[in-house]
Amino acid sequence: MKQKGVLAIVSGFAGSGKGTLMKLLLERHDNYALSVSATTRQPREGEQDGREYFFKTKEEFEEMIRENAFLEYASYVGNYYGTPRFYVEEQLAAGRDVILEIEIQGALKVKEMIPESVLIFVTPPDAEELQKRLVGRGTETEEVVRARLRRAVEEAEEMASYDYILVNDDLEETTGQLHAIVQSARFATERQTAFAETIKKSLAELTAGFA
Amino acid sequence: MKQKGVLAIVSGFAGSGKGTLMKLLLERHDNYALSVSATTRQPREGEQDGREYFFKTKEEFEEMIRENAFLEYASYVGNYYGTPRFYVEEQLAAGRDVILEIEIQGALKVKEMIPESVLIFVTPPDAEELQKRLVGRGTETEEVVRARLRRAVEEAEEMASYDYILVNDDLEETTGQLHAIVQSARFATERQTAFAETIKKSLAELTAGFA
Repeated sequence: MKQKGVLAIVSGFAGSGKGTLMKLLLERHDNYALSVSATTRQPREGEQDGREYFFKTKEEFEEMIRENAFLEYASYVGNYYGTPRFYVEEQLAAGRDVILEIEIQGALKVKEMIPESVLIFVTPPDAEELQKRLVGRGTETEEVVRARLRRAVEEAEEMASYDYILVNDDLEETTGQLHAIVQSARFATERQTAFAETIKKSLAELTAGFA
Repeated sequence: MKQKGVLAIVSGFAGSGKGTLMKLLLERHDNYALSVSATTRQPREGEQDGREYFFKTKEEFEEMIRENAFLEYASYVGNYYGTPRFYVEEQLAAGRDVILEIEIQGALKVKEMIPESVLIFVTPPDAEELQKRLVGRGTETEEVVRARLRRAVEEAEEMASYDYILVNDDLEETTGQLHAIVQSARFATERQTAFAETIKKSLAELTAGFA
């Protein structure tokens, strides 16, 4: 019997480096499947349907909502974003570990529905480093950097709802730690109940004949 | 600031291979300290004070009990066995991960005192394999093997109180899994509260001056 995979949900501050982290994790290990979100926003240059996002029309997306086809979805600046349920469940059933990169409200909704999922919050080592990384991108105006830092203040309040807080200081090291977190989740007692029942039963049978 | 180490407590059926597992873990990784128990039983041939056990007289052991020098202790077939508190606390404070191999009642007592400790139960893949390993040792009479299997039936009832159930099928693989479990415990949110408070505070300070 194939053990079900682990559903790992990664969130974190903009500038935490979680994107690079997950890219590296998928390069290093072949047990992971990355869940691709669906959205109604327009594809940007270079984005490919099914890679960055599944691009849907508003009508298609709302049809999927009615069919209960999303693990979670939200509307953001006039567009829908959602996690298609089917792919996640199919991969988990096949024993693969599924990584979802979603924002906090979505993460908490999935945790409510699938309590054995593992919530991981990625953060830089300190606030100064976060600011430096956001500024260092060079692609954002000062105003955008400030807005992201203000948002980080709010997000920081939700960190405590996560199972793990992962400090992304050294990318290689942090990738190893993320992998350790997901792999260890397989052995959590609440995921081993079927095994525990089986060995209890067979031990009882084995010893039943003893004098 | 050095992060405190993880206290990992390993228990498991006789014949689960947990001894070999821990030996391998300590050979492979240098972040572990193995806690050595104290006992009043006589040293056996080849046993060395401070390696297998700290050998104590009954008077010495009872003096240590009065001084609250044990994390846990128990009396078994007329002898005391206990986990000296000082070594464990010293190593944890130095950031080393401490491994305790103790039986279930002791493990649960330590967990009560130190809730952030990680309880890991090691088991063979099935009851037949457990029997095979116990018989395979060739050092025990059939009666002893049966007594151990009967004891395993009782111990199996306590598995659910552990944080992790680790199936020791392939020794190399299981060693990696045990290491992953202990390492990931460092990032559990309840161990990251000091970090979370610090980054929240510095994010608030950083954004306080924004318009």
